[in-house]
Parts: sequence; structure tokens; C-alpha cells
Amino acid sequence: MDNRVIIDADVLWEESFEKILELLENKRYFQARDELLKFNAVDIAYMLEDITEETDIDMTIILFRLLPKDVSAEVFSELSTDNQVEIVNVITDKEIDFILQELDFDDKIDILEELPANMVDRILEKTPKNERKLINTFLNYPDNSAGSLMTPDYISLRKEWNVAQALEHIKEVGMDAETIYTCYVRDNGRKLLGIVSLSTLVISSDDTKIMNIMRTDYVYENVFDDQEDVSEDFKKYGFLALPVVDNEHRLVGIITVDDILDVMEEEATEDIERMNGVIDFENSDKGYLDKSVMQHALNRLPWLVILMVAYVFTGMLITGFEGRLSEIICLVAYMPMLMGTGGNTGSQAATLIIRGLATDEVDTSDVFKILWKEVRIGALLGAVLSIINFGRIIWLDGNDYSVALTVCLAMLFIVIFAKVLGSMVPLLVKKLNLDPALIANPAISSVSDIVALSIYFVMAMVILGL
Amino acid sequence: MDNRVIIDADVLWEESFEKILELLENKRYFQARDELLKFNAVDIAYMLEDITEETDIDMTIILFRLLPKDVSAEVFSELSTDNQVEIVNVITDKEIDFILQELDFDDKIDILEELPANMVDRILEKTPKNERKLINTFLNYPDNSAGSLMTPDYISLRKEWNVAQALEHIKEVGMDAETIYTCYVRDNGRKLLGIVSLSTLVISSDDTKIMNIMRTDYVYENVFDDQEDVSEDFKKYGFLALPVVDNEHRLVGIITVDDILDVMEEEATEDIERMNGVIDFENSDKGYLDKSVMQHALNRLPWLVILMVAYVFTGMLITGFEGRLSEIICLVAYMPMLMGTGGNTGSQAATLIIRGLATDEVDTSDVFKILWKEVRIGALLGAVLSIINFGRIIWLDGNDYSVALTVCLAMLFIVIFAKVLGSMVPLLVKKLNLDPALIANPAISSVSDIVALSIYFVMAMVILGL
Repeated sequence: MDNRVIIDADVLWEESFEKILELLENKRYFQARDELLKFNAVDIAYMLEDITEETDIDMTIILFRLLPKDVSAEVFSELSTDNQVEIVNVITDKEIDFILQELDFDDKIDILEELPANMVDRILEKTPKNERKLINTFLNYPDNSAGSLMTPDYISLRKEWNVAQALEHIKEVGMDAETIYTCYVRDNGRKLLGIVSLSTLVISSDDTKIMNIMRTDYVYENVFDDQEDVSEDFKKYGFLALPVVDNEHRLVGIITVDDILDVMEEEATEDIERMNGVIDFENSDKGYLDKSVMQHALNRLPWLVILMVAYVFTGMLITGFEGRLSEIICLVAYMPMLMGTGGNTGSQAATLIIRGLATDEVDTSDVFKILWKEVRIGALLGAVLSIINFGRIIWLDGNDYSVALTVCLAMLFIVIFAKVLGSMVPLLVKKLNLDPALIANPAISSVSDIVALSIYFVMAMVILGL
Repeated sequence: MDNRVIIDADVLWEESFEKILELLENKRYFQARDELLKFNAVDIAYMLEDITEETDIDMTIILFRLLPKDVSAEVFSELSTDNQVEIVNVITDKEIDFILQELDFDDKIDILEELPANMVDRILEKTPKNERKLINTFLNYPDNSAGSLMTPDYISLRKEWNVAQALEHIKEVGMDAETIYTCYVRDNGRKLLGIVSLSTLVISSDDTKIMNIMRTDYVYENVFDDQEDVSEDFKKYGFLALPVVDNEHRLVGIITVDDILDVMEEEATEDIERMNGVIDFENSDKGYLDKSVMQHALNRLPWLVILMVAYVFTGMLITGFEGRLSEIICLVAYMPMLMGTGGNTGSQAATLIIRGLATDEVDTSDVFKILWKEVRIGALLGAVLSIINFGRIIWLDGNDYSVALTVCLAMLFIVIFAKVLGSMVPLLVKKLNLDPALIANPAISSVSDIVALSIYFVMAMVILGL
């Protein structure tokens, strides 16, 4: 029991890592390998990534080739694409063969999707014909569809079997199935009839017929369903795996919950980026550091250019008001505050509504409830901010009461307007069946900029008689 | 097989829902109940929520009491807190008893955490003494800790048992365990020795000793670990359940992956809100609509007030420059554009880095790589935006070359500066062990506002000789 590695303990990890680096420097590769093998496959992959960063890819390749064959396949599937490519480039065909044999089907698909085309060809050459056909089908499902997430490795039972036969069957094929915790009952035409969990099998008596314990009120996905909807179902029902069927209700694969964790992270990242004006045109899994400067610039340019156009209007507003502004030039000093507060307060509302829509907490049918809520929130916040500002303008800046009144009334109306704008626009966009996150916070702040200036200037005309 | 409900099909759901509403209107409660029972417990709970919204809580209570006892407990655990309270208020003690018996332990804890204190007392009164003690312990783990997520219902094996004994044991106790897919091997002092998955048990021969098939390289959590770290581990390793131990490495409970899906959603929501200047002080699970106007206003006020202070500085800058500004008043028209672009471009960089830190894609040690990348991205974007603007200022606005040069050079420097600021501040905050999302986009835009104005005015002085 003493060789149990406390994986949680970052200290232990760091110690081992330093030790491995030192061993590698002294070319004591086998000892480094043994130290590495104290960890599980996921951790070994993480370590190899760090080793590549600290030293170079050669060290990683040496260590990788020293790993026992059964470990190396799992480690391979956890490595970054860059490192996978490097490794596929140098290892022998026999080694590739072995890794491919050992990989789960959906890991294989993931890797093939990321590798360059010539690598994919090299790998497909070594794949038996019928598996190659299956791989090609899977590679053709659209990105982000249920089909692209699923694995064909599942346990399939027949409804006329009894529990003992089912358990026997699981023992025979079980090793290759990604998850055996839910088994699927199909008819002769591969149509899905029901599901049985392994726990039900284990606690049922041996002679119970499958048809009597299978559940028919199961939830399932279609191969073309969007991964976001799939992850909603996992969250809603709390299942470990969901079956995927084609348009004829034939079972074609299953999706397991561990892949959904990644989907949820991806979807949240996409929403967060979109909300703040970054659109990932490549739609890649690449991290920040892996994207080129050009790609980063392209992802960020569209919103900045759209905003540029919006600012032509604020510019025109100011130019139109220029003559009057130069009469009471101190009004200029409060412009950034009014526009900035409008923008931020609008973004706050938009953020809450966009997120609420994403998590199904609010719905477009709640529009009037939300409107009434935001009007009151806006009035409350606007009043508080106006009072603070009134004091500041008179005592700190030493300006007139009339200037203070102009700024503060404008502030009140701007905040209320921005809250309404920020909350209503996402609902409208959703109603049009578009992604609310795409009408990003920058858009809402620039519209509220224009309106804020208009309100301010109208107030100035009314109160200051400009 | 014909009564299988296609849960995915929203059409079918809507049809059933309309039918139930109609049946309720005609007081045909039993028929409404039967229609409801075509769905699974999660869906029934969703339907009851919608029924409460469309009609009133009385209808929901009537339907709830008509549900078969075994269904009602599961439905209860899926209802919103508001509806749970209403139901606990009217049902008999005997009914409460039954629901409590049927609930999984961690659902029970979740419900007790949300219910008002007098309800909790009423419920705890009906709980056997030793379970009451356990409940109280669980209720005392800090919010968002591993302890608050776990359940004590797990399968515990002994290392000297063989597989047949283990499976026999699972059959006996299995029904009550939240998940039986991973079993835990403990010594006499309740210390965790290893784990065995049910799939390993099922595919091993009956006389294999547990100690020979248990895995000792398991990953585990401490009761006081933060839920965010727990969900990181689930994502990293792809497990279905993780054991939770106390400081003496005694097994106290397990966390299952279905609860982690909710944690991930919560954590993403928290990050998104914080990044956009909303801080949830109540730290509640309440949705947008359930929070009061006052609570919403309080959550949003702090950042708006902090920004107010920042705007005092932009105001001072402008006031100090007022005399010169009134000489070339057209410069005022470009202020919103320069400040707005600075803010948005800074937010883009900040968003990517904050999210990258949250998903472990970037690390504080990447600071120089990030800096160099953002400088180049900023230069590229700044150049493109400057060129567009140069044309606009000269041809559209009809201003001087010197004004265009002032605005465009300022634009270039502002974009580069904002990219650097937006990317470096989150790294600094992370280095200080604070949540980078807390130094929200509003803060970055207001600092970049001040710097943008300063750059603009300096350019004006140098180029226009103001």
C-alpha cells in the first residue's frame, strides 16, 4: 500500500517532476521512466507536456517509447495534438498499430480529427477495412453534433435473454466497451427498445428476463442534435450515458458523461468570448497560446470595426452639439462618466439575461417580468448614483446646481434606459433563434453610448437652455 | 413498447402539457395524473413547475398528492425550493416521512440547505437520531466545499473478500447506494485503501481477491477542498465518482459526476457575472427571476460606484485640458471612439486570459509569451483601425490631416496599451492568488479610459501644438 501516490498533493507532484528533470539531464532515462510510472496515465501525459516545455520534444519521445505498451496508448490519447504529431512522426508502424488497437474508438476519432491529413492517411492504412469504414462515417458527422461525440462501443442485449445470459455476455465483450454501466436492448433491425443499467442487472436474480427489467422511458439523442442540447439533457437528467439514434430510431452509438464535461467547458468558453466581442472563426479546440497572432486579430477585428461605425454616430452627435458645448465646456468633463456608466450597467443586465437564457433560468416568455424588474433596478441604481454625483459636482468640482441637475437627471434616465436595453436585446435575439451571446456587450454599450449622449444633450438643452 | 414516450420531442411534450391543463380545468385530476405518469420523474417535476406558473400552486399540490408514493419522492427532489416549501406546508407528517425515507442522502441535504429553518426542524424531528446526527454534520461543511457535495451512500468492500462475496454484498445493500459503479475498499479504521469498479468485479472471476484487483492509484478529494478544484479533477480524469476523505485519510463520502455538472454550470455563471461587474453577494442558487430588485441592485452597485470614482479622474483630465480643447473643439468628437475602442479591446484580451486561466490553458508563467503576443495583436489591430479612421476623418468628417494623424496615432497606442493592460492585469491578480474574474472588465475599461484620454491629449499637444 505504501507506493500509493497521493495525486492531490501538488507538492509530491512537483518533487517527482523535479526529480524526473534531473534524471533526464543525467541521461538516466529508465529511472525517469520508473518515477513517471508512479502516476496514472492522465498525470503521465500532463508530466510529458511539462517536460516538453521545460526541455524539448526529444525527451518526451524517449520517455514515451520507454513506457509499457498498455500505458503508452492511454497516455498518447491524453497528449496535446502537437505532441501527438511529433510522436506519430517518429515511432514505427508497429508501434502505431499497437496504440491504435488499444485506443477507445471515440479517442481515436478525436485524435484523427485533429491530426494533419497525411497522418490520418498513414493511420487509416493500418486500420482493418470495416473499422476504417466506421471511422470514416464518424469523421463525417458535423462538428459539435451528437454524432461527433459518440462512441460505437456499447453493450447491446436482447430482450429475451435473462440476467445470467446478459452478465455472461458483458463478461465476454465488456473489456472493449467504453462504458458498460448502461446496456442497450435492440431488436433485429438495430432499433432501440430499452435500456438496462448494470446495477439493475447485478441486483436482479439470474433468471429474470431482460424485457421485464428494461426501462422504456429512456431519453435519447439524434445523431444530428447539437452538442449543447445533449449537454442540457445530461444536466437535466443526471445520466452517465445517453444512447444516440439515427432518423429510423436505430441505435448508432452512445455518448458518455465524461465527454460532456469537455463540451460544457467549450460551450461556456464560447459564450464568454462571444459576450465580450471575440468570435472564434476557426471554431477550433486550440488554446490561447496555440492560436497565431493573425488568428487572434481576426477573431477580435469584426466587433471593433462594427463599433467604429457606431462611433461615427456619437461623433456626429457631438459635432452637431459642438457650438453649444463650447459655451458650457465643463459639460464635456461628464461625458465619459455618463457613457461609461450606461455601457457598464447595460452589460450587467445583458450578462445576466444571456446567462439566464443559456442555463434555462429565464425564457423569452418572461419578457414583461424582466422588463418590470430591470426598470425598478435601474431606477434604484440610477437614483443612488445620481445622489452621489450631485454631491461630487457641487462640492468637489464646484459647478452650478443647474449643471449638477442636468448631469444627474441624465444619469438616472441613462441607467434605466441601459438596463432595459441590456435586458431586452438578448431576449429579442433569442426570439429570432440566434445566439444571444453574439449580440455582445460591446454592441449594447455602443448603442447605450449614443442614447446616453442624446439624453445628456436633451437635458442640457431643457435645463441649461443651450 | 408503444407507450414509450419520446422525451426529446418537444411537440409531444407540449401536446401532453396542453392536455393536462385542459384536464385540470375540467377537474379530471386522475386522468391528468395518468397523462403525467407517462413521463419520468425529472420531466414530471418540470411539468409541475410549469403547471404552477400557468395555473396556481394548488393544482400542483393536488397532482403531487395523486402521484404514486415511489414517484413522488423523486419528483419532490427535482422541484424548485418554493414549490417544495408549499408542499411541505400542506402534506401530512406521514407523507413527509415517506418522502424523506425515499430520498437519496445528498438530495435530502440539498433540500434541507434551501428550506427555511422551521421546515428543517419539522423535518429533522421525524428523522432517526443517528441519521439526524449525520445530516447535521453534512449541513456544517462549508458552502462550495467537497464536503457539501458528497453523499455517504457508497459501497464499501473489504480487501480480503473475493469477487463473489463482493457482488453478494452489493446485491444486499446496492439499492440504497447513490452509485454502485465504484466500490471503495476500507480498513478497520475506515481508512481508504483502494477502489474497485463494478465493471472490474463483473468481468473478474468469482474467486479473485479484492486486494488483487483494487486500484491504489486512485484520485481523491479532501472534505474541505473547493468545489472548483473537485470539478477540475473530474474533467481531468473523467471519473464517474471520486472518494472524499478527511484529514486522517478516512473515507467520509463520495461525489458523483452528476453533481459536478451543476457545479460546472454554477462556476461558469459566477465567472461570467464577475467578469461583467456583477457580484453575487448572497452566493445563492437563486435564478434571475427569484432574486429581489434590492438584491439585484446590491449585486450590481459596487462596481458602478468604483467606476464613478474612476470617472472623477477622466473628468479631471478633461477639465485640465478644457482651455485647449475649446480651441480645437472637433477633438471632442473623437473622445468616445478612442475611449470605447480602448475599453472593448482591453476587455477582449482580459476575457481570453481570464478564461484561459480558469480552464488551465494559460498559466502565470506564460506571462512573456502572452505579453509579446498581445503587443503584436494590438499593433496589427491598431494599425487596421487607424487606417480606417484616417480615411473617415479626412473624407467623411472633412477635418485636417493633422487632426487625423493625432487621432490615428493615439488609436494605435491606445489599442496596444489596452491589449497589454487587459492581458497582464488578470495574470497579476492570479499571481496574488485572487480570482482574476473579480478584477472585472469594467475596471479594465475604466483604467484604459483614463490612459486613452492621456495618450490622446499628449498626441494633441505634440502634433497640434496645443
